[in-house]
Amino acid sequence: MHFDLKHTDSGSKARAGEIHTDHGVIETPIFMPVGTAGTVKGVHQHELKSEINADIILGNTYHLFLRPGLEVLEEAGGLHKFMNWDLPILTDSGGYQVYSLSGSRKIQEEGVKFQSHINGSYHFFTPERAIDIQRTIGADIIMAFDECTPYPCEYNYAKRSMHMTHRWLKRCFEQMERTTPKYGYEQVLFPIVQGSVYKDLRKESAETIASHNAFGNAIGGLSVGEPAEELYEMTDLVCAVLPTDKPRYLMGVGTPENLLECIAMGIDMFDCVMPSRNARHGMLFTSEGIINIKNLKWEKDFSPLDPNGTSAVDHLYSKAYLRHLIKSNENLGIQIATIHNLAFYLDLVKQARKHILADTFVSWKNQMIPKLNHRL
Amino acid sequence: MHFDLKHTDSGSKARAGEIHTDHGVIETPIFMPVGTAGTVKGVHQHELKSEINADIILGNTYHLFLRPGLEVLEEAGGLHKFMNWDLPILTDSGGYQVYSLSGSRKIQEEGVKFQSHINGSYHFFTPERAIDIQRTIGADIIMAFDECTPYPCEYNYAKRSMHMTHRWLKRCFEQMERTTPKYGYEQVLFPIVQGSVYKDLRKESAETIASHNAFGNAIGGLSVGEPAEELYEMTDLVCAVLPTDKPRYLMGVGTPENLLECIAMGIDMFDCVMPSRNARHGMLFTSEGIINIKNLKWEKDFSPLDPNGTSAVDHLYSKAYLRHLIKSNENLGIQIATIHNLAFYLDLVKQARKHILADTFVSWKNQMIPKLNHRL
Repeated sequence: MHFDLKHTDSGSKARAGEIHTDHGVIETPIFMPVGTAGTVKGVHQHELKSEINADIILGNTYHLFLRPGLEVLEEAGGLHKFMNWDLPILTDSGGYQVYSLSGSRKIQEEGVKFQSHINGSYHFFTPERAIDIQRTIGADIIMAFDECTPYPCEYNYAKRSMHMTHRWLKRCFEQMERTTPKYGYEQVLFPIVQGSVYKDLRKESAETIASHNAFGNAIGGLSVGEPAEELYEMTDLVCAVLPTDKPRYLMGVGTPENLLECIAMGIDMFDCVMPSRNARHGMLFTSEGIINIKNLKWEKDFSPLDPNGTSAVDHLYSKAYLRHLIKSNENLGIQIATIHNLAFYLDLVKQARKHILADTFVSWKNQMIPKLNHRL
Repeated sequence: MHFDLKHTDSGSKARAGEIHTDHGVIETPIFMPVGTAGTVKGVHQHELKSEINADIILGNTYHLFLRPGLEVLEEAGGLHKFMNWDLPILTDSGGYQVYSLSGSRKIQEEGVKFQSHINGSYHFFTPERAIDIQRTIGADIIMAFDECTPYPCEYNYAKRSMHMTHRWLKRCFEQMERTTPKYGYEQVLFPIVQGSVYKDLRKESAETIASHNAFGNAIGGLSVGEPAEELYEMTDLVCAVLPTDKPRYLMGVGTPENLLECIAMGIDMFDCVMPSRNARHGMLFTSEGIINIKNLKWEKDFSPLDPNGTSAVDHLYSKAYLRHLIKSNENLGIQIATIHNLAFYLDLVKQARKHILADTFVSWKNQMIPKLNHRL
């Protein structure tokens, strides 16, 4: 695997690159649809390719570990084969989901004990175990086991937690060294910068992470409730420390505006449940602005879902029809809205890339953002 | 619109025909997927065509009347345009759904008063109103407003109800005469034979219905809980009375075995929620037998969903993957299972047609039925 930095925008720190994996090339900047349990909810794999133009999807280690479980995934030959998806996959380490189970987990130096949300069974994740599990799932890009601090987070807790994350990272790299890929293709580990919203901690963490000289680097612990200003300040600060010749992945971000602002700071990779989760509630990101399809104003609007949309659903179905489906709790409504929103996100980053390569990124971004935030 | 009877099987009363509508030709025998609220649950319209090979789908007047409502449907230019489906549609009259609301409806000679299951609002359906509503929905084939008696049903109730259904039928035909299609294409009315499981009533009803010389004729009030023997006995008896040169529609039937047995008696059209509803619970009808995909035996079965299946999902996804999705309550599991089951039903009737045309229907049916009923 290798990363080619193709171009850096003349007016910002935005970059266009290519991540070469054994499952194909990912053109950056990229957005990764979230496929929690081996499925992007409501979307067929062939639709991810033909309608959404996804280059890579994300799987959640915690969910896949519990269901279908490692035995099934290993016998299937890994997640790619299990779900019949032959393009790249990234998995998180399981950490983030485990911490969301606030009541039912306990964090110690050795690792994290937690209870399954499905059947209450007890499990123990360590940095080593997180690597082993991700070897079995078989994603192309795997993530270090970290603690994602909540927001707000007291300074001393954030500092102690960050240092533990750094010690865990060492154990992750050691476990990577001790093990090999199970299915004949390469896997790379991304370490994760933590440090909450404290500049000195973020800087220290970014320097520690950079020192590992990993294939790529991630920024975690943001988009957890902090104001956008802090998200941007931390991202900018960390990007200034992380090496320019490696891909940078900002975890769990964000709105279309967040994507464009963070691309301008040098972020190459994003994932977020927002486009798919909001779709399920009838909130659409479109070329003209944000639509709440449940509003009465769409009841008799028989115009196409998004006349400038890149996916077939944008032209096959009307706003009035989608409104009817969503109001009636029909799965097809969720399917249409999800395809639309994910296609919109992927089109946005592809447009961003085009403008980076043409050195027109900043003027394009500044013209896009008011449209993206406009509520129709 | 016209019906061409192409061939009657030499070894049974099974028939192959063609129903010509302004939205295309329906090759019979046919199965009609149920699209209750303007959507076959979880299935895109283009999948109905390319994966399932549906020639016609069914809409439910009761549901469409309540949501999206007649104003929206009329402004859209009818259901075809609203949902972007350009092949034929059949609508029921709303009667059946209204009776299922046992507690909240009242049947009188004039019509039926009922309460919406959505918001409790009161509505009144009469034979005339059922025609008007179906004119607005705009299906190619519309159904008479009848009372569908439950099972078991006391003889005197069944007789009185049947006579009221016959009087209502006259009012339906009169309303058809008084009104015209709204969207420039033809609509035909199918009357419905009732009479519960009483031979004399069924014979009388079939004779009354036949005397109207309608485009096609339907058999209602079956598949409501009676034993298969009674379903078959009534169907056979009624088919002997109904004219041979008109399509015969057996409403709400049934299992794959039911379809083949009733095709042998001269039925041309079927609809049933079974393939789609059972799919949502993980029950698959396959070329080798019935699968409950939730069973542990499929956990590590990575073979294709149905190696002989006609739809792409049969070959794209494994049994183990579908099991994981259904067990995890993932919408994609429902989508895959629904496409599979509906494609299986459509393939079954298309195979039946081929064997009718080749005069090999009976031997094929007898060889198929044990396979269809086999539990894997």
